[in-house]
Amino acid sequence: MSRPSVMQVDTEALCRIADGGAVLGAGGGGNPYVGRLMAAQALAGGKTVPVVSLDEFADDELILPIAMMGAPAVMVEKFPSGNEIPSLVAMMERLMDRKVSAILCIEAGGLNSTIPFAAAAYMGLPIVDGDAMGRAFPELQMVTFTLGGIRATPMAMFDDKGNGATFDTISNKWTERLARALTIEMGGSAMVGLYAVTAGQIRDLLIKGSLTMAHRIGCLMQEHGADAARVLAETFGGAILFRGRVRDVARRNEGGFTRGTLSIEGTGDFRRRDLVLSFQNEFLAAEEDGRVLASTPDLITLLDANTGEPVTTEMVKYGLAINVLGLPCAPIWRTPAALELVGPRYFGLDVDYRPL
Amino acid sequence: MSRPSVMQVDTEALCRIADGGAVLGAGGGGNPYVGRLMAAQALAGGKTVPVVSLDEFADDELILPIAMMGAPAVMVEKFPSGNEIPSLVAMMERLMDRKVSAILCIEAGGLNSTIPFAAAAYMGLPIVDGDAMGRAFPELQMVTFTLGGIRATPMAMFDDKGNGATFDTISNKWTERLARALTIEMGGSAMVGLYAVTAGQIRDLLIKGSLTMAHRIGCLMQEHGADAARVLAETFGGAILFRGRVRDVARRNEGGFTRGTLSIEGTGDFRRRDLVLSFQNEFLAAEEDGRVLASTPDLITLLDANTGEPVTTEMVKYGLAINVLGLPCAPIWRTPAALELVGPRYFGLDVDYRPL
Repeated sequence: MSRPSVMQVDTEALCRIADGGAVLGAGGGGNPYVGRLMAAQALAGGKTVPVVSLDEFADDELILPIAMMGAPAVMVEKFPSGNEIPSLVAMMERLMDRKVSAILCIEAGGLNSTIPFAAAAYMGLPIVDGDAMGRAFPELQMVTFTLGGIRATPMAMFDDKGNGATFDTISNKWTERLARALTIEMGGSAMVGLYAVTAGQIRDLLIKGSLTMAHRIGCLMQEHGADAARVLAETFGGAILFRGRVRDVARRNEGGFTRGTLSIEGTGDFRRRDLVLSFQNEFLAAEEDGRVLASTPDLITLLDANTGEPVTTEMVKYGLAINVLGLPCAPIWRTPAALELVGPRYFGLDVDYRPL
Repeated sequence: MSRPSVMQVDTEALCRIADGGAVLGAGGGGNPYVGRLMAAQALAGGKTVPVVSLDEFADDELILPIAMMGAPAVMVEKFPSGNEIPSLVAMMERLMDRKVSAILCIEAGGLNSTIPFAAAAYMGLPIVDGDAMGRAFPELQMVTFTLGGIRATPMAMFDDKGNGATFDTISNKWTERLARALTIEMGGSAMVGLYAVTAGQIRDLLIKGSLTMAHRIGCLMQEHGADAARVLAETFGGAILFRGRVRDVARRNEGGFTRGTLSIEGTGDFRRRDLVLSFQNEFLAAEEDGRVLASTPDLITLLDANTGEPVTTEMVKYGLAINVLGLPCAPIWRTPAALELVGPRYFGLDVDYRPL
């Protein structure tokens, strides 16, 4: 295969992508520690996976997104068995009845930016430099592909025990409903393949360069440690929304999601102020006295104030010193149609979206 | 096709099968009124479907069971759209990658003895004279095929809206769990294809002749009306367990099933006696003062004392005068392995099975 690659990803690079992916994951997309473990396993023995620009693929080449679906709080305790990927790939190839040319990350995240590398390594395929969210969102219809009228199905799904299922639905919202019900029954998480697309279908829909961006973020984090939040805000046009200490976390696993709210007591420049964050796998909104500082689809991410590490919604706990980083979402999410799909009102928040 | 048939089923015969199937359905298997409507629609315009003995099929011929899965109380309000069958058949044929030679009823029932005729008529195929229960049971692993080590999957499932799913599971119990979760999400009922088998696989497992038996029961009911319960008990080695009036029904839709209990106040010879029936789609046990008169896997069926019509668990109501008919199950269900699968203890009843 002589396709030119943007980068060759080895275990070390994939650990950076896990960290950067967790920042872009906006509180969700899977735990970066689990992601680093997956990375080490997937690329053990010096294996590498080429990351390739979408431009290098012909219009009719088939691209297969792979992801973990479920509640992040479950995924940190119930690891993939490793057998899901071969089973899933075999099932998707049978469904599509076509050869796959590349793997794609459907969303950014500590896990969902790394799991697809395991699939790519297993299949000996490159991975496309991009994703369908530019962040993580909790529901599977929440991808730019839905805006372009692309169907989520045929979709395949495997659990760690070896149970598999496929779907063929009338809408991406129905795919979400059915797949979510099965994810719960499978124990709270499952490996999925969905939105199989040709390169030609997604030229205007792919959020391009998100893997190299995740890698760059991961490298900046490693370099700057506790100061990473400031550096990332400056580098990517974001802002430090808040600094403080976690005072309370109300978290529950409900309907296949990790949901809840989080309150943070300001420290330093933010003393005597309080921030409340709501989440459904990912952070949805950051509010101070009823004033919204940031909301979905913009990215709200927590970084540990002492280490600079991303703190996901299933891991955040009482007493943790954190920086709340806001980053602008990809421009495609700011259209009215996109806001209907992923804006604050979809999630039941009585708030108009105001861009960061 | 020159295969000799046991009978040619037209709309009239199918209505008899719906009634007889509802008796064999032991309170479940779907409502016979809905079954008769389906029958009229499926065989409209003088169409007929041949019922053929399993002996007429070569060992390697593929047989596809079709059924409605879900809570009977839902099925009487949410009718199939009619589009499920073509979608389901297309999906099963793709999964099996083989031509189907005949359709099979997986269980007896007002609906599940008639729906497969709609599939057979649509496909221009015969239907095998038999089923995999000789009655109806609530969970999909509860078939004689499970006793023979036959897998339920590949399985396909379609709802009335056009959503489809397939399963490939590690056990038939897991097929039940996953398919049940999806049935609930699909609105409480769905059309399923599963346990695709070759004729050779089921020579010793099929409950033979159950369609002609359902037809015979339906004809006896038509002939004897209110006296049908007595005639059926005499003809098929059963017994009238009780006669009385329904005093109370506690019924709920739970976990994708119609569950509950029913109490009956004795009349005539049964005066001053009380019977309690428990059910999960089908009747599980009939108890009088803690004494079990009959239990699963034997058949407990209610017949309207005034009309002789079968009364299913989702339709039975306060004040109805009924005869409680007990019929012996097929002998295969009385082995220890079978009782583990469908005996009273599986359903949480603290009762040993004693054959009728």
